[in-house]
Amino acid sequence: MTQILLVSHGDFCIGLLNSYKMIAGETKKIKTVPLTDEGIGDFSKRLKEEVISIVQTDNLLIFCDIKGGTPFNESFNHFLKQPDKIRIVPGMNLPMLVEVGMQLETDQSLNSFYDTALNSGKQAIERIEYEEETTENDLEF
Amino acid sequence: MTQILLVSHGDFCIGLLNSYKMIAGETKKIKTVPLTDEGIGDFSKRLKEEVISIVQTDNLLIFCDIKGGTPFNESFNHFLKQPDKIRIVPGMNLPMLVEVGMQLETDQSLNSFYDTALNSGKQAIERIEYEEETTENDLEF
Repeated sequence: MTQILLVSHGDFCIGLLNSYKMIAGETKKIKTVPLTDEGIGDFSKRLKEEVISIVQTDNLLIFCDIKGGTPFNESFNHFLKQPDKIRIVPGMNLPMLVEVGMQLETDQSLNSFYDTALNSGKQAIERIEYEEETTENDLEF
Repeated sequence: MTQILLVSHGDFCIGLLNSYKMIAGETKKIKTVPLTDEGIGDFSKRLKEEVISIVQTDNLLIFCDIKGGTPFNESFNHFLKQPDKIRIVPGMNLPMLVEVGMQLETDQSLNSFYDTALNSGKQAIERIEYEEETTENDLEF
């Protein structure tokens, strides 16, 4: 199975998980590691503990706030050590989390989930024009 | 000038703004309206107040967590009323906020900022491969 770890500057990752839960309900397969005022050493230690704990049994998708930031860089080091069990997604947003999160109970490969995360995250950032009207088929939540 | 409003299910938008401030510093041009347990009526009222206040003097980009959700739908109604002063971006992430937020003091059209938000948000969601190494030219923050 696959789990998701959300990492970010500050509590953005915690807020994102809360948004997910408001839409999709509770989950034990999505966890968070925020970079706090305690600094990089503290963040790195908590990240390492979560990663080691998860990859003992599962594959891991790490959703990061932004490429080049500390949360991304620290996650990237774990990816380099275990590229067969870990993949990294920069620029995390709620649509990719909803799309992948709600499929985590299904039996898919890590790379399948990875492609879904990248594609759904990108596609969700779409141009909203004046002509476009909300239709009855659109989801509301 | 242009301002940004971040709207989301729960405090995701507040966390996102905090992440922005950790990277780019303080700003008065980015505000938040979270959908809380108080419900849609309360959210709609606070959103309306912020939108009216901002468009009196400035243009407005509304970054939303996900298309089809309440924060998006309520924002879309404001966009329909004032499409010349308001644009909506669904699937908000930190890279688009950093890219646009740090340019808000420059004199650009609303549509120029809108294109930047969409493009930078999409481009940031990129495939990270094992071969890729962080170079000295990469930003670190």
